[in-house]
Amino acid sequence: MKIGLDAFGSDNAPFPEVEGSVMAIKENICETIYLVGNSEVLTKELSKFVYPKERIVIIHADEVITMDDNASNAARTKQNSSMVKTLQLHKEGSVDAALSMGNTGAVMAASLLTLGRVKNLHRPAIAVTLPTVEGHAIVLDVGANADCKPEYLDHFAIMGYLYARFLFNVENPRVALLNIGEESKKGNELTKKAYTLLEGNKSINFIGNIEGKDVVQGAAEVVICDGFVGNVLLKTVEGVAYAMFTMIKEQVKKDWIAKVGAMLSFPVFRFIKKKMDHSEYGGALLVGLNGVSVVGHGRSNATAIKNAIKFTSRIAKSNLPQQIEKFFTEKVVS
Amino acid sequence: MKIGLDAFGSDNAPFPEVEGSVMAIKENICETIYLVGNSEVLTKELSKFVYPKERIVIIHADEVITMDDNASNAARTKQNSSMVKTLQLHKEGSVDAALSMGNTGAVMAASLLTLGRVKNLHRPAIAVTLPTVEGHAIVLDVGANADCKPEYLDHFAIMGYLYARFLFNVENPRVALLNIGEESKKGNELTKKAYTLLEGNKSINFIGNIEGKDVVQGAAEVVICDGFVGNVLLKTVEGVAYAMFTMIKEQVKKDWIAKVGAMLSFPVFRFIKKKMDHSEYGGALLVGLNGVSVVGHGRSNATAIKNAIKFTSRIAKSNLPQQIEKFFTEKVVS
Repeated sequence: MKIGLDAFGSDNAPFPEVEGSVMAIKENICETIYLVGNSEVLTKELSKFVYPKERIVIIHADEVITMDDNASNAARTKQNSSMVKTLQLHKEGSVDAALSMGNTGAVMAASLLTLGRVKNLHRPAIAVTLPTVEGHAIVLDVGANADCKPEYLDHFAIMGYLYARFLFNVENPRVALLNIGEESKKGNELTKKAYTLLEGNKSINFIGNIEGKDVVQGAAEVVICDGFVGNVLLKTVEGVAYAMFTMIKEQVKKDWIAKVGAMLSFPVFRFIKKKMDHSEYGGALLVGLNGVSVVGHGRSNATAIKNAIKFTSRIAKSNLPQQIEKFFTEKVVS
Repeated sequence: MKIGLDAFGSDNAPFPEVEGSVMAIKENICETIYLVGNSEVLTKELSKFVYPKERIVIIHADEVITMDDNASNAARTKQNSSMVKTLQLHKEGSVDAALSMGNTGAVMAASLLTLGRVKNLHRPAIAVTLPTVEGHAIVLDVGANADCKPEYLDHFAIMGYLYARFLFNVENPRVALLNIGEESKKGNELTKKAYTLLEGNKSINFIGNIEGKDVVQGAAEVVICDGFVGNVLLKTVEGVAYAMFTMIKEQVKKDWIAKVGAMLSFPVFRFIKKKMDHSEYGGALLVGLNGVSVVGHGRSNATAIKNAIKFTSRIAKSNLPQQIEKFFTEKVVS
């Protein structure tokens, strides 16, 4: 498995990208990594590590797409950027998948332009894995489409269903619509219309509406929403988990008995922190493209990048992209 | 202060309503409570408690609005319900505020019909107080308006600003727009247009966009969003806090050292659980009505109802409703 990695995506690029790649190669997560970016900088950084040299290939790219760039403009005009070049490597078949920790909007725009959208599909989406009490749930869209039509949500549901089946091996994944009440008539204009479509969709196992509180309880394996709502959900889960750890830490400091207690319970906190930590989940998959494009968190450290490489490699090994393509190409879809 | 309480709103009604009222009177939270509902049942329930009899008045109502009722239909047709009768008591001036633990949609519809909307205001909203690391934040709308126009959000911002000022005594509350990125150009059609309005609104202290993760960090005292997104946010915060406590409990069970640790840290957990617990926050205020209408959680127990009575009484004592009315009546608002 060959993975293309945009070495200039993360907030501290290229340091975590370089170290994460070395870790991934040493752990045999994939065969070869194509590290894309300024070759001088990358050569210097890589020289600090000991690893099988032939398994990390540097591909030079002059430009960088930053967080301040306008996503679609940058994707079109910065053809020599590390991000676009990584996707081009995938398009031409030199690598089996592309990974970037950069500007999510730009990765989506560049992936669409370079790899193209699956035939008959309304819109690609960004899918993430969220931790739940029971395990995890796939949520989509979490940001590619801030304004959606009901039929987009119907297609997201199909892609989410296939994702849970072919990547997580759930036999008949429960697909739910994120809404503000469980009854079928609840919601805004979008979710009311989407409910009718999902109810009539025989290719999925639609279980109805669920609310924000049910997602982390594990009420469904696949949660469907528009990109605005999904993004708020994702970031709120992240924020509350972080805030609770902060509050526990601050309170524990004030009381030495509680401090001793917290030390004894440390493995529990470590377990839960790990479970709630985005960097353990490897990144978000852009579903509905002709290829594999993964975007990771800008704040990723080397371990998070190693995990993202692992996740990307797992997707490339699975036949999920092919299953999605097959569904929309062969089936008569609305 | 006289509070009207719908005795048949909560999931276990009227038991928590009756006990909560007795607790509130004993703690002198308000002068008199008008308990509205089936007088036979209420008389029997109240007879189980010892309290100053003259301070809880039973007002008979035959009907009950349930969770299965269509909100706006029930508000119009069930004129003899405990919920509508409670609001009528407030309208005619027999009580200073109305409180119900019932169907939120129905409370909103009945409040609008009975009390009426503030002049010149686009739409009333449901405002809640969410816990943050720093203290708390007022979030609105959390469910009254599932589909919003940009100008509604502009009015929500004004009401939220006045809320934080006149109820929580924040001098110049920071008002933020909940969005999927911090930059002004980010968002969906609604938030992009709302941003422009909020930026030009000189009656508030608009600090720009914040993301889901920033809300619980305490980035703003007032958070503006449409009712769909606000409802997802509110329920996700509630769900994640609950899920984390569940996970901690389950992990602690597996390891006796961690169990001892958790026992020693118990005061910390109790503190945080209390901080994250909706029943400590007293309920949601329907802002933008000619009067005071508060809706509490359906799952409320007696203590939660006592807290809700305290909260309702505090609003009635403040001059927040008058300030909101004054603003929209006197100012030339868009």
